[in-house]
Amino acid sequence: MRQIEGGVTAAKGFMAASTEARIKYSGREDLVLLYAESPCTAAGVFTRNQVKAAPVLWDRALIDQERQVRAVVINAGIANACTGKEGEGVCKKTAQETARLLGIDSEEVLIASTGVIGMQIPFDKLKTGLLPMKRMLSPELEAGNRAAKAIMTTDTHEKECAVQFFVDGISCTLGGMAKGSGMIHPDMGTMLSFVTTDAAISRELLQKALSDVVEDTFNMISVDGDTSTNDTLLVLANGASGAKRIEEEGPAYEIFREALFFVCAHLSQMLAGDGEGATALFEVIVKGADTREHARTLAKSVITSSLTKAALFGHDANWGRILCALGYAGVPFDPEQVSLTITSANGTLDIFANGCALDFDDATAALILSAEKVTAICDMHAGSEEACAWGCDLSYDYVKINADYRS
Amino acid sequence: MRQIEGGVTAAKGFMAASTEARIKYSGREDLVLLYAESPCTAAGVFTRNQVKAAPVLWDRALIDQERQVRAVVINAGIANACTGKEGEGVCKKTAQETARLLGIDSEEVLIASTGVIGMQIPFDKLKTGLLPMKRMLSPELEAGNRAAKAIMTTDTHEKECAVQFFVDGISCTLGGMAKGSGMIHPDMGTMLSFVTTDAAISRELLQKALSDVVEDTFNMISVDGDTSTNDTLLVLANGASGAKRIEEEGPAYEIFREALFFVCAHLSQMLAGDGEGATALFEVIVKGADTREHARTLAKSVITSSLTKAALFGHDANWGRILCALGYAGVPFDPEQVSLTITSANGTLDIFANGCALDFDDATAALILSAEKVTAICDMHAGSEEACAWGCDLSYDYVKINADYRS
Repeated sequence: MRQIEGGVTAAKGFMAASTEARIKYSGREDLVLLYAESPCTAAGVFTRNQVKAAPVLWDRALIDQERQVRAVVINAGIANACTGKEGEGVCKKTAQETARLLGIDSEEVLIASTGVIGMQIPFDKLKTGLLPMKRMLSPELEAGNRAAKAIMTTDTHEKECAVQFFVDGISCTLGGMAKGSGMIHPDMGTMLSFVTTDAAISRELLQKALSDVVEDTFNMISVDGDTSTNDTLLVLANGASGAKRIEEEGPAYEIFREALFFVCAHLSQMLAGDGEGATALFEVIVKGADTREHARTLAKSVITSSLTKAALFGHDANWGRILCALGYAGVPFDPEQVSLTITSANGTLDIFANGCALDFDDATAALILSAEKVTAICDMHAGSEEACAWGCDLSYDYVKINADYRS
Repeated sequence: MRQIEGGVTAAKGFMAASTEARIKYSGREDLVLLYAESPCTAAGVFTRNQVKAAPVLWDRALIDQERQVRAVVINAGIANACTGKEGEGVCKKTAQETARLLGIDSEEVLIASTGVIGMQIPFDKLKTGLLPMKRMLSPELEAGNRAAKAIMTTDTHEKECAVQFFVDGISCTLGGMAKGSGMIHPDMGTMLSFVTTDAAISRELLQKALSDVVEDTFNMISVDGDTSTNDTLLVLANGASGAKRIEEEGPAYEIFREALFFVCAHLSQMLAGDGEGATALFEVIVKGADTREHARTLAKSVITSSLTKAALFGHDANWGRILCALGYAGVPFDPEQVSLTITSANGTLDIFANGCALDFDDATAALILSAEKVTAICDMHAGSEEACAWGCDLSYDYVKINADYRS
């Protein structure tokens, strides 16, 4: 497996188009059409929020019915959440219009939205935007890149990742895109993420690989502890590579799972590092835990601690806050056994061991903490399980962005 | 029952002294001695954080042993958490020194600390501060007020509350003080709070009343979702009022419980409203829930949502974030049934009902949200249970205070 350029159009047989539909933004593209030349096996994971956006309900129904998928329509600016019957109607009309344009079935069209909650999508604008998109569809990497930009809201850059891998000697590609960057505390997938592959795989195994990989990738990131109403992660597999269909667990499935993990882990880290107002990606590795679940819970507790995040923003090695966040995670452990190390491109420093702070130099710590990616390694000395979580620092800009998001 | 002036010295037989011991701060008082002229029945609730500060372990042991209490020593600036054996030693020496000065037993001395985690308390400074405090002890309200100021860290003002009530016609008093104002997400008591009363009550009922009242007061506030290592809430009852000892549940117990609830609820709201960087107290009332526990969980989810708190800071009626926070609380409900009203001294506005936003005026909403105390009322229309939680907005100053707390 090797990383290659590209995103959702990296795999064979997938095309993308994007346009400025002015649904809420203007002066930028805000509507994306993703199209598969042949029917795709689809899998998805969605928000566990009790309040689910209309497109989440639409997609989940189609995924549950094991429908094959040909297209995905994505808009940025308005989330189509808390929009009642009118919002459901917009989804249905969007699918019908897309199906008519592409000559496919409306139940082969998935939909995703992101943006302000509670506002209705002006369907006339969305329809006007859709009309010319069929002829704009392109399989080029550039089209995938424009799509990754068009789905952004407060993101500062697009997020794409792709890999090449081999199934029985046949080259397959898997690529994806994602967008954040606030209300990020996924409890299934992230806000919006789309992965395409030309590998062939059964629906059951595709869903299994996705659900499995999500636990250690998208479900291990947090920007602000708020689980969105719109979290959606879709994977489409069209089999265009010509590789043998993966229908049972085994070496080919493991290779596929590894590729999916790589892309999801990269997209997750990109989301965390581009969290609203973030100046640094914060990685927390908990090792030496007694169970995997405990390791995950401990790591997530640290990346979601506002105090720890603010200290990181200030490049302050306030390790007491990390210990404190481990302590309230709800996992039993002996504080006397914990050791803590911080590391980044700027160096490595042991700062806590055996229940006491080590004698470290604050200036060295500040230098380490001023890198673009900072890792804290917490060794619980209680077992051999490990987990990794990704977050970001808490800055003035997070407050600024969110004090005035609607206007 | 009526509210009266004062705090920990409002009840008969309690004295306080405070001094500038320069344990970490200078130019302000940072050490408090609270003294009871006669032995007190004591009850306490403490942090559930796995990482417990040395004074928390000290106090809990004495409370568990059902010891009578004569004094409490409190310092601000250093939390004495994550300090190992040396930190435990400081507690023991503090109790011994206090006992020697006051002519009491060292196991009648409780200890509380607040401030930076992981730093050792310089015991020589603490001892030097303690030496002259016996003759400074005073039963005046002013002494209680100075104590409430001396225990502050990033608090912007002291927090006191007292009430007078009658047990069988005899006047009793109950008063307390508390301090915040970051790392506030209590999971038993708050950072530090002390309540004294001259009512007489059995240890069992005092602990029962406290544990009960805490669930609806200190455990319903959050500033930043971080549960401290030092949360301590102590109640001392000395019986100096001469009122009959409360030894069973009944009318007298109910009156006592009501007085304790009033003082704890007021101190809790003061803590939330003075959260680090806060410009407003945010009250969330969830009514019409199917169970009390669900109502509590829903209300706490909203007050801890960073996005909702940032929107409040911006006076932005971004109600979608409130719906979203209800949705990820982990409580099942039908979003179509929820209604939402915001209210403050500046007016009242219905903003959401039956799964859709109402047609409200943004300027009116902004005016309501710009008050010092803002209340959101969420009616789930699913039952008759209710709960109330208190938090604050998320401002630039929260980040500023916490990016650079140690220096």
